[in-house]
Amino acid sequence: MRNRLGLIIHFMAISVLSLSFAMCSFTPKKQEPYEIDVGFCISCHQERTPGLFQSWVESKHAKNGVHCVTCHVDHQVASDQKAMVFPEKCGECHSKQLEEFRKGRHSIAFDRMRIQGEYLGIPEEIRSAFCERCHIVQKRCNSCHTSHRFSLKEARDPDACGTCHLGPDHPHKEMYETSLHGIIYKLTRNPERAPRCVTCHVPGGSHNSSFGIAKGPAGTRSLVVDLKGTPISREEEKRRREEMIEVCTGCHSRRFAQEQLENADHVKEAGFKLQEEGKEVTLGIAQEGLIYPPVSERMPHPTEGRTLVLADPQLYIGTSYIERLFFTMFKFHTIRVWKSGYHFSPAYTHGYGWTEMQLDLIDMKEEAEKLRELFKEKNKP
Amino acid sequence: MRNRLGLIIHFMAISVLSLSFAMCSFTPKKQEPYEIDVGFCISCHQERTPGLFQSWVESKHAKNGVHCVTCHVDHQVASDQKAMVFPEKCGECHSKQLEEFRKGRHSIAFDRMRIQGEYLGIPEEIRSAFCERCHIVQKRCNSCHTSHRFSLKEARDPDACGTCHLGPDHPHKEMYETSLHGIIYKLTRNPERAPRCVTCHVPGGSHNSSFGIAKGPAGTRSLVVDLKGTPISREEEKRRREEMIEVCTGCHSRRFAQEQLENADHVKEAGFKLQEEGKEVTLGIAQEGLIYPPVSERMPHPTEGRTLVLADPQLYIGTSYIERLFFTMFKFHTIRVWKSGYHFSPAYTHGYGWTEMQLDLIDMKEEAEKLRELFKEKNKP
Amino acid sequence: MRNRLGLIIHFMAISVLSLSFAMCSFTPKKQEPYEIDVGFCISCHQERTPGLFQSWVESKHAKNGVHCVTCHVDHQVASDQKAMVFPEKCGECHSKQLEEFRKGRHSIAFDRMRIQGEYLGIPEEIRSAFCERCHIVQKRCNSCHTSHRFSLKEARDPDACGTCHLGPDHPHKEMYETSLHGIIYKLTRNPERAPRCVTCHVPGGSHNSSFGIAKGPAGTRSLVVDLKGTPISREEEKRRREEMIEVCTGCHSRRFAQEQLENADHVKEAGFKLQEEGKEVTLGIAQEGLIYPPVSERMPHPTEGRTLVLADPQLYIGTSYIERLFFTMFKFHTIRVWKSGYHFSPAYTHGYGWTEMQLDLIDMKEEAEKLRELFKEKNKP
Repeated sequence: MRNRLGLIIHFMAISVLSLSFAMCSFTPKKQEPYEIDVGFCISCHQERTPGLFQSWVESKHAKNGVHCVTCHVDHQVASDQKAMVFPEKCGECHSKQLEEFRKGRHSIAFDRMRIQGEYLGIPEEIRSAFCERCHIVQKRCNSCHTSHRFSLKEARDPDACGTCHLGPDHPHKEMYETSLHGIIYKLTRNPERAPRCVTCHVPGGSHNSSFGIAKGPAGTRSLVVDLKGTPISREEEKRRREEMIEVCTGCHSRRFAQEQLENADHVKEAGFKLQEEGKEVTLGIAQEGLIYPPVSERMPHPTEGRTLVLADPQLYIGTSYIERLFFTMFKFHTIRVWKSGYHFSPAYTHGYGWTEMQLDLIDMKEEAEKLRELFKEKNKP
Repeated sequence: MRNRLGLIIHFMAISVLSLSFAMCSFTPKKQEPYEIDVGFCISCHQERTPGLFQSWVESKHAKNGVHCVTCHVDHQVASDQKAMVFPEKCGECHSKQLEEFRKGRHSIAFDRMRIQGEYLGIPEEIRSAFCERCHIVQKRCNSCHTSHRFSLKEARDPDACGTCHLGPDHPHKEMYETSLHGIIYKLTRNPERAPRCVTCHVPGGSHNSSFGIAKGPAGTRSLVVDLKGTPISREEEKRRREEMIEVCTGCHSRRFAQEQLENADHVKEAGFKLQEEGKEVTLGIAQEGLIYPPVSERMPHPTEGRTLVLADPQLYIGTSYIERLFFTMFKFHTIRVWKSGYHFSPAYTHGYGWTEMQLDLIDMKEEAEKLRELFKEKNKP
Repeated sequence: MRNRLGLIIHFMAISVLSLSFAMCSFTPKKQEPYEIDVGFCISCHQERTPGLFQSWVESKHAKNGVHCVTCHVDHQVASDQKAMVFPEKCGECHSKQLEEFRKGRHSIAFDRMRIQGEYLGIPEEIRSAFCERCHIVQKRCNSCHTSHRFSLKEARDPDACGTCHLGPDHPHKEMYETSLHGIIYKLTRNPERAPRCVTCHVPGGSHNSSFGIAKGPAGTRSLVVDLKGTPISREEEKRRREEMIEVCTGCHSRRFAQEQLENADHVKEAGFKLQEEGKEVTLGIAQEGLIYPPVSERMPHPTEGRTLVLADPQLYIGTSYIERLFFTMFKFHTIRVWKSGYHFSPAYTHGYGWTEMQLDLIDMKEEAEKLRELFKEKNKP
């Protein structure tokens, strides 16, 4: 016990010293006398949550005198689960970052999730283990800057982005890791040798994740949209492509960069064209009244109602088999084709993408044949 | 040759010195005069198996005078493939570890495998390339502590566990690596910053892998069982949950830890509920006599005989398509949903788990429809 | 501007010094006076492509006076996309490596790709994002030795090989990473502790990638073939197996190595036997005239014409569902079974391989039943 007390006193002394000499570019705006001093929090938390405490000790925050109550206000507030630290709080010191963040797609992630059918179709009590765990990025800076260490180095690593940008419907992490860019970065850990996610998506430390990169669309759509979902203009597309090429030319010639991105544009077009073929097959079967269960006898789509939905915002629950085949195509496979085109991952563009789309088409056409053979007579009046 | 001999003498001198000063907590019990001295083994093996030799040189064993014959007895015994080093041998020095190991599930891994239908269904001559490569953990301490280096640091790394705990039917490694815990550990390699497998499953260096963590069941069952397969009591469940929370509170508040684990409990319930739905569809078809080939005409299940087996210990060989759909659901997808719930991997809980389960259900229902349409009339008497 | 000029002069001075003292085993053969000196290139490229420039600065090439025009000839040539640096150019200094390279399978990768149906079936304008991105290894040493750093350490890392050897149809990287070999290497980064790809496939720094390892076949075939596709003789097989065992015995006993490889031989046989079963089911349906669309009504196979192709060079485009099931089996699953046998990855041999093959068989048999029930009557004359 004596030892711990000694440590606290020692630590507070260091803190005071650190504060005096701090060469910090983010000096906290409010220097009001704290209602609770840092020693009070530490007296318990150093023992009860040593991992958390140690992370903070090693952080720039600790060195600059930003401690528990600076962000958590007081013990009562900090204990309330509804009162965690929001971006607005971080913005009190990091105002430029907050401003940039608000221009980007991360800042609407939670709101957009809440009106999506996929989210609404998940039992309420388990939503927090599903979509919310990532879409919370709108409300938590520590989605990328892990608490309580808030290390810049960690936040800039592709692995930090990969916490959310992975999996069957948005395998950005997997595409990057299987591209030559990702391989060289993994081998060298040197961002001068190969780009990381942040190099292209939030260049120069920006917090606006809607940077450049067009003509890439958003998500599963074929058009590039702004934060409100409106397709951007051709001029804006061109401007963003130029922004992107500017980044590429750090290592590549302009000609090469342009060529590669235009090649990816072709890949994207080819992918969406295959998807259209799949859509037509499915639509044909629907128009012939052969899908089961019919739309009229299903649970209505949470946002679209009792109507056939193909491609976004199509759901994976309670549909017919042929619709589900199309769902897998548009949601998992088309996205791999075209996004891997821009991420330069041949395994994902071809093996996990294009090949799967061709197999999807075979499956859909055979299913269509079977449905016609099995049920067509019946449906005739 | 002279050089090698010199090295051996030099090495033996160092060994003697190391022995004299060793501050080892695991002093070998038996210090009988060796029949073969270390120099005899080294004289060949340094040249013939240099990798193996070098691993031992760098090991704590070498520093503490534990050498070839300490474990391998003599050259004759060591050459016999049936006489490898068993945990009992390791336990002569590491008795506490052996005792703990015997309380855990690793210590029954081989015996349980040998009576499982999946194992019995694999051609005998290739079994050693399949299940045995991992289940041998019952008989080989070097499953985790790689021979001949026996590095503690390596054995404690998540990658060591991931040698076996991966793949479609138990993607523990993949779940961990896609959780925030796994990401932070990968970024920092610092076990103070984020838990590794051992932090929760064998805390404090224990070798009993059956620690806490309830209400997580074993494998594909919905109930938590003890080593003999008997479901544990509610009281035992509660006690283990408390054990687990104790670990979480190293970094998280008690409230947060409890909330997260209870949320995972809900995820588990929801997953098994979906699985039940799939089971009912399959059972319905079986009861209508529509599965092909019918159970009576198949190879009998190696342990259950000529009966319909749905969920554990269901097999993947020679069943009907609808049973195989259910197999994929219960064996690959349900497990991802609920185990990822406890491992906090949204990609595996949702994308690779819940979504796949919903698609499974669509597939099963459509198959049921087709089977009824195609074969129902026929089966009527 | 002044600073940059200073740097260039400083750099050139260092280059000259480096040249004088270089203890290089690859002294450039031609020391003709350069038409353009290094300063000319650097004056722009240091600023315009700093990443590229920095990579070169850190390379052995820079230290040995091999600079831009040594490989790229002059600015005009370097700008022409059709005139990149070919292996022949590298061979002017690295003649031994070029000679070895030409004996191996990498040296025919592009030519063989160009006559394959899979390649010919991909829209021309996107081919460069698919197969070409890897098969270009025939024409680019920088496929493995990343430009402009050309680091040996990087080229020897499994990740370098994994740039191409991954994905559904050749998951070599995934098999290795899930084997104990791959795990120990990942944990230690020490090639003395565990083999890397190069340890077995291009031992001793050889550039001939067709080394030993038989009786492993090439790709999806069951026989080991030479560069021209001719099966190698039993004697050659035996000789190569001996070559392989030589490598294994660096760490393992000869008995153990032999046993493990022979076990893999059994795994391979068992895998191809299962595949044959699937082929028979598919062939049966084809012979009964039940595949749709029938071969006569399809786009002809680009190299085989209007004929049923099962296994290599079967395609994934526009076939019937039962053929597509067989495609997935032979192209993705058989290969995982047997190649993982030799790579010692239980997850890929069993879970991702053998299990999937058994499920494929169930799917094919059920599909055959349905096709017979649905269409057999119709096809009768």
